[in-house]
Amino acid sequence: MRITVIAGGVGGARFVRGVREWARRESPDSTIDVVVNTGDDAWVAGLRITPDLDSIMYTLAGVNDEQRGWGRVGETERVSAELREWGVGWPWFTLGDLDLGAHIARTSWLREGLPLSTAVERLTARWPLGVRLLPATDAEAETHVHVRDPEGGDRVMHFQEWWTRHRAALPAVRFEQRGVEQAVPAPGVLEAIGDADVVLVAPSNPVVSIGTVLAVPGIRDAVRGTAAPVVGVSPIIGGAAVRGMADACLTAIGVRTAADAVAGHYGARSRGGVLDSWLLAEEDAALVDDVRALGLRTEAAPLWMRDSDTSAALARDAVRLAGVID
Amino acid sequence: MRITVIAGGVGGARFVRGVREWARRESPDSTIDVVVNTGDDAWVAGLRITPDLDSIMYTLAGVNDEQRGWGRVGETERVSAELREWGVGWPWFTLGDLDLGAHIARTSWLREGLPLSTAVERLTARWPLGVRLLPATDAEAETHVHVRDPEGGDRVMHFQEWWTRHRAALPAVRFEQRGVEQAVPAPGVLEAIGDADVVLVAPSNPVVSIGTVLAVPGIRDAVRGTAAPVVGVSPIIGGAAVRGMADACLTAIGVRTAADAVAGHYGARSRGGVLDSWLLAEEDAALVDDVRALGLRTEAAPLWMRDSDTSAALARDAVRLAGVID
Repeated sequence: MRITVIAGGVGGARFVRGVREWARRESPDSTIDVVVNTGDDAWVAGLRITPDLDSIMYTLAGVNDEQRGWGRVGETERVSAELREWGVGWPWFTLGDLDLGAHIARTSWLREGLPLSTAVERLTARWPLGVRLLPATDAEAETHVHVRDPEGGDRVMHFQEWWTRHRAALPAVRFEQRGVEQAVPAPGVLEAIGDADVVLVAPSNPVVSIGTVLAVPGIRDAVRGTAAPVVGVSPIIGGAAVRGMADACLTAIGVRTAADAVAGHYGARSRGGVLDSWLLAEEDAALVDDVRALGLRTEAAPLWMRDSDTSAALARDAVRLAGVID
Repeated sequence: MRITVIAGGVGGARFVRGVREWARRESPDSTIDVVVNTGDDAWVAGLRITPDLDSIMYTLAGVNDEQRGWGRVGETERVSAELREWGVGWPWFTLGDLDLGAHIARTSWLREGLPLSTAVERLTARWPLGVRLLPATDAEAETHVHVRDPEGGDRVMHFQEWWTRHRAALPAVRFEQRGVEQAVPAPGVLEAIGDADVVLVAPSNPVVSIGTVLAVPGIRDAVRGTAAPVVGVSPIIGGAAVRGMADACLTAIGVRTAADAVAGHYGARSRGGVLDSWLLAEEDAALVDDVRALGLRTEAAPLWMRDSDTSAALARDAVRLAGVID
């Protein structure tokens, strides 16, 4: 089975790991392509960082820090301490030493003129990930946030500043993906979506992860036009965002933090949206009828990814909801 | 007293530290400018490295590794191990973690368009060095080595590859400083030489350290034209190069590894060269007459820099030989 997942960082990484685990157990001939958000990417200290791609790569390689939830396990921060002495980089954004290996390698290739997708191919070749990672685009189209300053006046800042430095606490007015109009999908992205047997939308941030992938010209149309069923997995469980700060993003674009509201935001393909089905949390089972009223197939299932068994079961539920397995 | 030193890396660093120590003790109003070789600089893993500038900076800051002889004390190599996994950089050239802080900071400033001299100013501002470091040039004019392959045929490689990877064991035919014709002295260099009360040539490699500084158009003329006395300190002690591999460089340009031969290579200003005086090692005292015959003032003195006392004494001997103190 050709499975294509659209994903953001940490939540996306766990979901993709579950998909891989399910496929290994029950559909070992499957191929898995993951189209990954690049809107969080940034230049920091002259180095190109790609947080979502790295989160997925590290998680699939088994070198991620499960406890902290991001970065490499066994990480140290000796280089960052030096950079702070010189005032280089963002003092609120730590570049781990092991992580810097990837940043330096990636940046050296980009400076040689290679596209990000080639850098990702080279980085991921280090481990047998069992999954192909595709950046949504090779273009630099970074998310910026227009915030209303409580003191008055509006400001614009890089998404990382809003998210990591301010913990999404400054009220966001709108998100802007700078330069996305000129961006084109990275090589392989449109084919991965168009030729898939099933397309899964990971339970990632609907606005600044999945939303930014879909905003790359051509990707939304590819999802709308693929012959494969498209299944979304709710990032909301029991009326709350699994990753708390996603709230602030939904609020900024006028969407309630509720599983049916997010489903409505994506919309049914039959009504101009991008989904055919929506996998709800069992805690939100009461919303099944509301979601059906949106024109979506739906079902309630356990969405908490606690370990490989629960993650693989979630992946199976999503693929089954697509109708491609029994 | 305005003291200007022309210096390469490790030997230059020890000598400059001695000059600073002598000045603190006996001439505390002195200012010390150091014009530093940049011919060893290189792009490694997309980062700009400047080994000689760093050796002097770390040594004067007291954060250098005295035992190993180069780099930062307490260094680790976690990032380099990662880079090796991806085949990025030179596997035979280790970038220490602490050292990488400087490389990343420097590179980020250079990528912003700042000149190397500004990067050096920013890096050195971290510590009260008591000395101003000036790169010989802001231009990239890297030394390359033409070698005769024992298997037959000539090859050209970056100086670092010849020096660090091959330990200068491949016979060098000639040295080439790529692009040096277009280079200009960094801001402050010509003034530091022209306005000095004394110019000291450190006991650094005469070919690939001092030679590369003098090859930057304008610098040799400034040394020849300064009103200050110019004193060289021999890098040869007892007929052997203090830093062994300097031999190979002298051989390549047809100069014997002998204190008088190196003095003759620099030459007396009165005869078209760059020196007025030459401080010989006491082990080479027998060469005093040969050096005088070159038109140079000379004197034999202890040249081994074992600690601050011997280094400061050496600096005093050099300044005294210049005739600017009694």
